[in-house]
Parts: sequence; structure tokens; C-alpha cells
Amino acid sequence: MKVAIIIGSDSDWPVMKAAVDTLKSFDVEVQVTVASAHRTPQKVHDFVTNSDAQIFIAAAGMAAHLAGVVASLTTKPVIGVPMNSEPFKGLDALLSTVQMPGGVPVATMAVNGAKNAALFAVEILALANEELAEKLTVYRHKLITEVALKEQKIQQSLHE
Amino acid sequence: MKVAIIIGSDSDWPVMKAAVDTLKSFDVEVQVTVASAHRTPQKVHDFVTNSDAQIFIAAAGMAAHLAGVVASLTTKPVIGVPMNSEPFKGLDALLSTVQMPGGVPVATMAVNGAKNAALFAVEILALANEELAEKLTVYRHKLITEVALKEQKIQQSLHE
Amino acid sequence: MKVAIIIGSDSDWPVMKAAVDTLKSFDVEVQVTVASAHRTPQKVHDFVTNSDAQIFIAAAGMAAHLAGVVASLTTKPVIGVPMNSEPFKGLDALLSTVQMPGGVPVATMAVNGAKNAALFAVEILALANEELAEKLTVYRHKLITEVALKEQKIQQSLHE
Amino acid sequence: MKVAIIIGSDSDWPVMKAAVDTLKSFDVEVQVTVASAHRTPQKVHDFVTNSDAQIFIAAAGMAAHLAGVVASLTTKPVIGVPMNSEPFKGLDALLSTVQMPGGVPVATMAVNGAKNAALFAVEILALANEELAEKLTVYRHKLITEVALKEQKIQQSLHE
Amino acid sequence: MKVAIIIGSDSDWPVMKAAVDTLKSFDVEVQVTVASAHRTPQKVHDFVTNSDAQIFIAAAGMAAHLAGVVASLTTKPVIGVPMNSEPFKGLDALLSTVQMPGGVPVATMAVNGAKNAALFAVEILALANEELAEKLTVYRHKLITEVALKEQKIQQSLHE
Amino acid sequence: MKVAIIIGSDSDWPVMKAAVDTLKSFDVEVQVTVASAHRTPQKVHDFVTNSDAQIFIAAAGMAAHLAGVVASLTTKPVIGVPMNSEPFKGLDALLSTVQMPGGVPVATMAVNGAKNAALFAVEILALANEELAEKLTVYRHKLITEVALKEQKIQQSLHE
Amino acid sequence: MKVAIIIGSDSDWPVMKAAVDTLKSFDVEVQVTVASAHRTPQKVHDFVTNSDAQIFIAAAGMAAHLAGVVASLTTKPVIGVPMNSEPFKGLDALLSTVQMPGGVPVATMAVNGAKNAALFAVEILALANEELAEKLTVYRHKLITEVALKEQKIQQSLHE
Amino acid sequence: MKVAIIIGSDSDWPVMKAAVDTLKSFDVEVQVTVASAHRTPQKVHDFVTNSDAQIFIAAAGMAAHLAGVVASLTTKPVIGVPMNSEPFKGLDALLSTVQMPGGVPVATMAVNGAKNAALFAVEILALANEELAEKLTVYRHKLITEVALKEQKIQQSLHE
Repeated sequence: MKVAIIIGSDSDWPVMKAAVDTLKSFDVEVQVTVASAHRTPQKVHDFVTNSDAQIFIAAAGMAAHLAGVVASLTTKPVIGVPMNSEPFKGLDALLSTVQMPGGVPVATMAVNGAKNAALFAVEILALANEELAEKLTVYRHKLITEVALKEQKIQQSLHE
Repeated sequence: MKVAIIIGSDSDWPVMKAAVDTLKSFDVEVQVTVASAHRTPQKVHDFVTNSDAQIFIAAAGMAAHLAGVVASLTTKPVIGVPMNSEPFKGLDALLSTVQMPGGVPVATMAVNGAKNAALFAVEILALANEELAEKLTVYRHKLITEVALKEQKIQQSLHE
Repeated sequence: MKVAIIIGSDSDWPVMKAAVDTLKSFDVEVQVTVASAHRTPQKVHDFVTNSDAQIFIAAAGMAAHLAGVVASLTTKPVIGVPMNSEPFKGLDALLSTVQMPGGVPVATMAVNGAKNAALFAVEILALANEELAEKLTVYRHKLITEVALKEQKIQQSLHE
Repeated sequence: MKVAIIIGSDSDWPVMKAAVDTLKSFDVEVQVTVASAHRTPQKVHDFVTNSDAQIFIAAAGMAAHLAGVVASLTTKPVIGVPMNSEPFKGLDALLSTVQMPGGVPVATMAVNGAKNAALFAVEILALANEELAEKLTVYRHKLITEVALKEQKIQQSLHE
Repeated sequence: MKVAIIIGSDSDWPVMKAAVDTLKSFDVEVQVTVASAHRTPQKVHDFVTNSDAQIFIAAAGMAAHLAGVVASLTTKPVIGVPMNSEPFKGLDALLSTVQMPGGVPVATMAVNGAKNAALFAVEILALANEELAEKLTVYRHKLITEVALKEQKIQQSLHE
Repeated sequence: MKVAIIIGSDSDWPVMKAAVDTLKSFDVEVQVTVASAHRTPQKVHDFVTNSDAQIFIAAAGMAAHLAGVVASLTTKPVIGVPMNSEPFKGLDALLSTVQMPGGVPVATMAVNGAKNAALFAVEILALANEELAEKLTVYRHKLITEVALKEQKIQQSLHE
Repeated sequence: MKVAIIIGSDSDWPVMKAAVDTLKSFDVEVQVTVASAHRTPQKVHDFVTNSDAQIFIAAAGMAAHLAGVVASLTTKPVIGVPMNSEPFKGLDALLSTVQMPGGVPVATMAVNGAKNAALFAVEILALANEELAEKLTVYRHKLITEVALKEQKIQQSLHE
Repeated sequence: MKVAIIIGSDSDWPVMKAAVDTLKSFDVEVQVTVASAHRTPQKVHDFVTNSDAQIFIAAAGMAAHLAGVVASLTTKPVIGVPMNSEPFKGLDALLSTVQMPGGVPVATMAVNGAKNAALFAVEILALANEELAEKLTVYRHKLITEVALKEQKIQQSLHE
């Protein structure tokens, strides 16, 4: 059970670290590399064709070709995370990642959606791993509790 | 090995039929339903919580809440297909599908990306099914042959 | 005379508090809850189906499904407030809220339009409540006075 | 129980007729006028200040000022319908209608959302009219049946 | 020779003051008022129909109806200045100002284009006033000198 | 009293002919030329610097530099008409025309706003020509009558 | 003197043929291939690394990674042509092609700008080839004559 | 071997200095001028027609006509750099620069893509200069080393 995370630039790291943290919190092994579709195409090629990860998460900004290039090199599931960057706020990265032609899919997350990329990878792995599936259920229940706690604070502020 | 396809409106059917055809070509069982997040929320709820499919594909246009609503009801992988419709050409559906908040991921495909939704589902199922994995490799090789044939025609027209 | 305000996340509270304040200034009873269409769908369902409010105001950002989901659960008037959030500045929330399909309307306000959501709720309630209608007229007159005062300051600065 | 529909141009009529038909199907009285915020501002003024309708529906395209101008003349609920027109496909009309400043709300529907404008008016009127409220419930049930019928056709086509 | 400037909100003043300053630098008389198309429609009406200015400059943000409403009340030239405001950065104001229907023109400037609105008004007045025309020529020459000075600084920095 | 119309391409003629017709209907002399900012910059230069027209109307599509280039060559009023063309539907032309830097204004009309460009030119000329001013008033009254006639047809269809 | 044209799909051919025709009209040798960054990444790699062309023109639609991928494989000039395709009309292809990160440039043309891609390639080759430079001057003069002829027709229609 | 850089405003200098630095690092001679298509059209004309540079880089913001105007005056390669400026974040400049009509190409870089403009100029010059071509290969290798170093830091942080 291993997920590989490829980030196009080290500037994506502060956002994408959330994906690593989330995967680790589910006890999923993570492999991280920095590799750019444009600056280091050979590194991307070698990493993807040699990795024994089951799922790839690729994060890039601007003309974000990384997820598409990864998907062109493997038939394993590729999850794309468009990164928010100036000046187009991730719209360029979103369209570059999601508008893949028929035949080579990329599963695209929200702009900067690092945590959801990890959660989606866990959902895939959980199909063949009941323990993970249970952890996901626990995770969803925690979301409910969190919302309840947040509401409590607001209700209190209303009655102060 | 079963994939459930939920379409928000029967007008999405001509596009989404490609997902059914693609899944069948990989011998994956398909379950299809028409259920709208807004018009038939109870039906969406009942379908998702009762289905034994491993993966959900949800297709909707405009304020496309369907994939998000499905994802709120299950921790199985949910693939969203934003549908192209007038007047905003699927931009509304794309943003409504992909910009999910942290905690509840939807794997978003290109606007009208029915075939890729199916292929991505196959890629997930192939992680635990070697036969499917081989079929995917064959599929990719077919893409290469198709491109070669298309080039041939153009080369001929150049020399006429 | 009661209006229910549902906010998708506690981060929406600083903006949406203006709706509470506005409703209270018209002596309209307000019920507030935090409930997410994606993280706590059951809570949204229970709140909407149990509330005795006449009008619902739903505020959410990004893929803002909340107002649409509320509208799918009731035939009472639902007012949607798209929230401004990074990186798409509320364009995703606006399209997710306003582009509802035929049959299930959501009355959409401007991005972050908390005050107007409250005022619109008051306008609805005022149809059956003459006192409220008069207060609305007074409110509009206050707007005129405010503009006059603002002009005064600028006129003075021009002649200094 | 009367709803007034103001259309900015007779070219909006083929779309907006659906609002009239929907209101009539609920036995709500409808008053229709053609009045442009720019070409006939006096007519808009006179119509709005003299009408005894409880709710105004205003439909306009391009720089769609009509709903905002109507809202500036009344404290009754104003529902705005942005019209789809070339070349910006209603994006100009949507932003011109929905982005109202604080103090003067317009309840905005989807681009060309004529039917939903009427339904939303009915939802408002139903707050003080139980018969209408019941008709709305019946209407929603019809939506469920319609979806079921549409699904049936698709299921049949799948097994042919 | 008088130009009237109508600003929709006092928050537009810091930007629009540049229009006043520019007009004064050409010795053109300026009349300023704060009047909102939505909050004070009567004030807009009275101001426009009573003003003896030859040209109107109207500045507003968001659903910027002000210039259009002014143009509906006069056949004198109306210049519209869309104001930059959150969250849509003036795109809403630009489309609301420029996309006027046939029959009622508004001459639209760039977002926040206060200075150009004033200059354009001067260009109109200069058609019947040779002195103004000469001042405009002088102004353009000053632009050339300014550019030359700016270049000098950069050339120096290059050779340091 | 002369207005010069410069169109960037003969493909703009079917739309811009409306400007010629409108100006002629007000008995304003019109001068027409085809000149491209990019293909024939010298022709644009010669035409603008030699023309005795009081006002220039410049119409162009895509990267619509024409109006800006004309404005750089004269201090007479320049009215820009962005043309609708594939694939960006005039958004490129609108931004290229309206977003002029401080110092060199272009009065921008709606996309394809040929008629309004002509009317705005007439409004300018009418400042120094009472007869034209009266014709403009008559023109506005005609608009009112037209709207009344259009309403009549719709009222009839309602009662059939 | 050879230019290689890579098209991502044979559906791009009807538009891109204009690039071939333009290059041939300047007697520049052209090499054409169909190769997709996603479906045939190895073919793209082999073609680019083996070609003896001096310049590459890459045309692709949607998430148009082709030009960027070509640029990652060579330090020869790469010209990108974003293709117009449904539903986003080339905006996705434009942003995917032009928003390249620092270090790996792609010279981007207008959407569907096949002819200009060829002309720009000729402009580059003409730097080292005086004959080509002269042909470019002749070409520009032809543009001037064409504009003059187009004007003639319009002038005639004006006086008919 | 000389490249001319024209910037539309001195405010573009902090970004465009990177182009000068990059060209100098390749020992390419650089000529810099500040010249605005709108404020100093004659200066642009004189500079372009007199320069002995082989390539022009033109940088401008908003209605960025500069690159197009330069291209209209020369058949040498013109590289356009759209500048990021408020409020449209360079979208106006991008469309104004890239959407050139057939016949007069501008090679457009990313918004604020100063470094890539310089690199692309070097790629052109390298076609006739083997030494430059080798430097470009070295430059690309440096990119690979940089990425490796950045990865190292992240790997370390992962194991701390």
C-alpha cells in the first residue's frame, strides 16, 4: 500500500505536505519526489516507470502538465492537484489538469486540494483493505464532531 | 466488480452512454440510474446507501451538486463528470464538481469526460485485478495504433 | 416569523453575522446552525425538515451545494449566499448556487451578500406583516440620509 | 395573489413565457409588461409604483439593470432573471443582476431561469396560503415521478 | 463648460478624485455628487434632469447600473467608469457598464479609469474650444517627456 | 459635422454598417475606411492625421488594437467598438479596447455596439448643434413607442 | 531550412493545414506528424529527439500539453498553437500552452493561429536567409494591397 | 547578436529586468527602451525601424498593444510579454498580446514571463550560433541539478 506524490516545484511543498500528513495518518506509505514535466522530463519518466506505488498524486501550477504526463506513462490511477499561483489563481492549472483528452484520465481535485487527493487515494486503497475502510468511516464521523464543536462556539457567541 | 453510474438528468444520457460502453468493453458490471440531487434527493440517498458497487460515477450539469452529494453519503471513490450545457458550457458544472471542501473528495473528469470516467474506474479496479490491468495496457496500445493510422491518412493527403 | 440561517463552515460566520444582525434589527427571530452539505448531510436533512422557520438562508463557499441541498428538502423559500473564498473569489460558489435546474429554485444574493439575504427575507415576511413593511420603508429612507451625509463630507473636502 | 413580470425586451418573451405558464398552473394571477430600464425608465417607474402585485419578476439581458432598477423603486420582493444573449451568454446579465450592493436585494435565478422565478414566487406566496403550499408539494412529487419515467426509458434501452 | 461627476458610493471617491483633479487642471468646471442608482434613484433622477453640465461621468462598482441609469435620463454624453471592488475585481462593473443595449450608449473607460474619463470629457469639450484643444496637445507632449525621463532612469541603472 | 469610421477588417462591415446608417439617419456626414493596426499601420497613421472628421469610431476584433492606435494619434474623441469573433466572443476585443492606460482614453461600446457608437457620436455633436439635440430627443421617444408596440403584441398573445 | 509540425490529434488537421500551406508558399520544407503528449508520449519523444528540423510547431487542444512536452525535449524554438475545441473554446488550450514555467519557453500563437505560427517560423529562419526576409516584406505588402481591395468594395457599396 | 527590449512603462522594469539579466548571462547584447504604444507611438516607430537588433521583446500591461504595434513595423521576430497588473491580473494583457490576426504574428510568453522571453530569443539566436546552443544545453542541465537540490531538502525534512 504505497502512494507516490510528485510535485512540480518545491514551492508546492507547503501545500502538498498536507497530503503526506493525511496519508501517514491512515498508515499509508508515501513516496515523495520533486520532478517537473518541463525541466526534468526524464526524471518524471524514470520515477513513474520504476515506482512500485499503486497510486500517483501529481501537483503542479500554471501550465500544469505534470499529472497528464504522469498519466501518459502509467495505467495506474493518477490524481492531479492544480496549484494556486499568480496571476491566474490556479485557473490555468485547473484547466491544464482536468481537461484531459479521451483515453488518458486524470482524477482532478480542487485547486490546492492536497488533503482530498490523499483521502481519495485512501478511498481507492480501502476498496481492498477493510481496516482502511473503517478508518475512513471514523474520519467522516470526526468531521461531524468537528462541525458540532464549531456550531457550539457560534451558538455561545449568539447568546453572549 | 461493479460500477454505478448516476446521471442527474436523462439529457445527460447521450454523453454518458460512452461510460457504460467503455465499462462493458472491459467486462465490468454497470448499474445505471437517473437521480437528481435537487429533484430526487431521497432517491440519491437510497441508491448510494444500498448499492453494492465499488465505485460511483456521477454526472450532472449547471449547479452540478450530484457528485458532491453522492460523496457525502459514501466513503467509496466517487468520480464526477461535469456536463456541458447552455449557457456556461460546463464551467458552472466543472467548478461545482471539482471545488469540493477538504474531507469529502470528488475525482473530477473533463467536461463531458464520460469515457475517461469509465477508464479511471477501470484503473482503480485493475489495482486488484491483473486481467483488467492487462486489458488497460492493451487499450493504451490501441491508442498508439489509432494515432499511427490517423497520421497515415494525413501523410497521404500531403503527397497527393 | 422566523428565519433559519445555515452556514456551511464556521469560517463563514464573520461575514454571515451581518445577516443575523440585520434580521434582529427588524425584530425577526433567527435560528442559526452550522451544517455542511458534504460533511454533515444528515444534519442538514434533520435541521431543514424539523425547522419551523418560514425562510432558509444558506451560505457556503467553493462548490457551494448547501443552498441547493436545502432547497431539495423543502418548498419554503431558500436564499443562497455564495461566499468569497480563495482562489476563485466566489465565482465557483456563485455558479454553484445560482445555476439551479428547473423545479428547485434558490434565490441567490451577491457574493458575501449577507445583509441583502436578510433584507430579502424581511421583504418576504413583510408581505404579511404591515409593521415590517413600514420598517423596510424607514430603512430605505435611512439609506437616502446616509448617502446625503457621505456626499456632504466629499463636498466639504472639495472646498477645503 | 398577483405576480408582475417585467421583461426588458420582447426578445425575452419566448423564454419568459414559461414563467407566466408556471404561475398560471398554480392559479396565481400574472401581470405582464415590456419595459426597459434604459429605453423607458419612466414606464418602469410608473409600472412598479402603481402595480398592486406582491412580487416582481424582472428579466433582462446584457447590462441587465432592470431588476436592480425595479428593486430601487419598491420594498416588495424582486426576483431577477438574467437572460442568455450573445456574445457573453448571460454572464454579463448574471453579474449585472446578482451583484447588488447592500441595502437593495435582488433574488437572482439561473440564466434563463424563468420557470424557477415563477416557482420561487409561488414559494413566497405559499407562506400565507396553505393551498398553494400543498400544490408545491404535489409539484415536487411530480418531479420525482418524471425522473422515474425517464430512468425507465434508459433502463429499457440498456437491455435492448 | 461643465462636467458632472456622479459616484455611486463614497468609497469610490479616492479613485474618482483623479477625475476632478484632471478636469480642474484643464480649467473645466466640475460638479460632484454622491448618488446611488439603487439606494437613491430619485436623487439620480433629479440631479441628472436638473444639471446644466454638458457631460456626465458616472462611476460605480459591482452591479454598476449608475451610468446606464444616467444615460436613460439624458441624451447628453455619459461616460461610465467601472470601479474595482471585491471579489470580482471590476469585471462585474465593467460588463454592467459597457454591455448597454442599442439606443442608449454609455462610453466606458477602463476599470478605475478616472483620469481617462476626465480626459475624454475634455476631448469632447475641446471640439468647440480651441484653447482646450491646445492644452490637450500640450498634455500629450508632457506624456512623451515623462516617458523619456523614466527611460533615463532605467538606462542609468543599466550602466551602474 | 463629420464622423470617421475605421474598421480593422472587411469582415466587420456587416455589423458596422449599422453605424453608418445611424449617422446618416441623423444627417451626419460619414467617412469610412478599412485599415488594420497590424497589417496597414501606415494607412491608419495617414488616415487619422489627415482626416477632418471631429470624431473617430474604430472597430476591431481579437487583439483589437485599432481604437488604441487611433487614440495615440489624435486628441479628438475616439470611440471603440469591440467586435464579436471566434473563439472568445469579443472578450479579447473588449479588454483590448477598454483597458487603456491613463493618458489616452478610448470610449468603449458594447461588443458589436455599432449603433450605440454612432448614437454616442451624435450625442457629442449635439452639444454644439441644437437641431441634432432635438433629433436625439425624438429618437428616444421613438424607442418608447417601439417598446409600447412590442408590449401590445405580447398582451394580445396572452389573451388569445 | 525545415520546420516540423506536430499535431496532437487528426481533428486539428483542417486548421493546421494552413501552417503547412504557408510554409510551402515560402519554400520552407515541412515535416508533419500526428503525436499526442498523452496517448503516444514515446512517439513525441522519438520524433523530437530525432528530427533535424530547426523549429517545432506543436498544436493541441483542451489540456494542451504537447507544446510544453516538446519544449521539454529540445532547446530549439517551439511554437505552440492552442486549438479551439468544445466546450471551453480554446481557453483551456491557451492557458495550458502559454503559462509555461521559467526555464522552458513556448512561443504561443492565437487560438487556431496556424498561419501565424508558420509566419513566425519564417521570421526566425529569415534572420539567416536574406531571400526569405525579402519574401516576408513582399508578403506584408500583399496584406496592404488586400486591405485596399477590401476597402474598395465597401466604398462602392456605400455609393450604390 | 542583439536583442531589443521595449517596455511600455517603467513600472514593468522590476519584472523585465530578469530578461536583461538572462540575455547578459548568455553574452547576448541587449538594447532597452521605454516606449508606449499609446503615449509615444512615434518613439516606438522610430525605435523599431532604426534598431539593428535581430529580435524584439515587447512587454506591456492592460490593453497591451505594444507587441502588436512593434510587429506591425517589422518582419523580425517579436516576442510579447503580457504584464500582470490590477485588476485583471494580466488576462487583459495576455489576450491583447496573443490574439493577433493572421499575417502579423507575436510570440507570446506567460504573464510576467520575462525570463522565458529572453530564453526564447536565445533559442532563436542559437540556431545560427553553436556556442549559444551549447550554453542552452548547459542551462537545461542546471535546471535538472536545481530540481535535485530542491528535492534533497524536502526529503531531509521528511525524515527529520
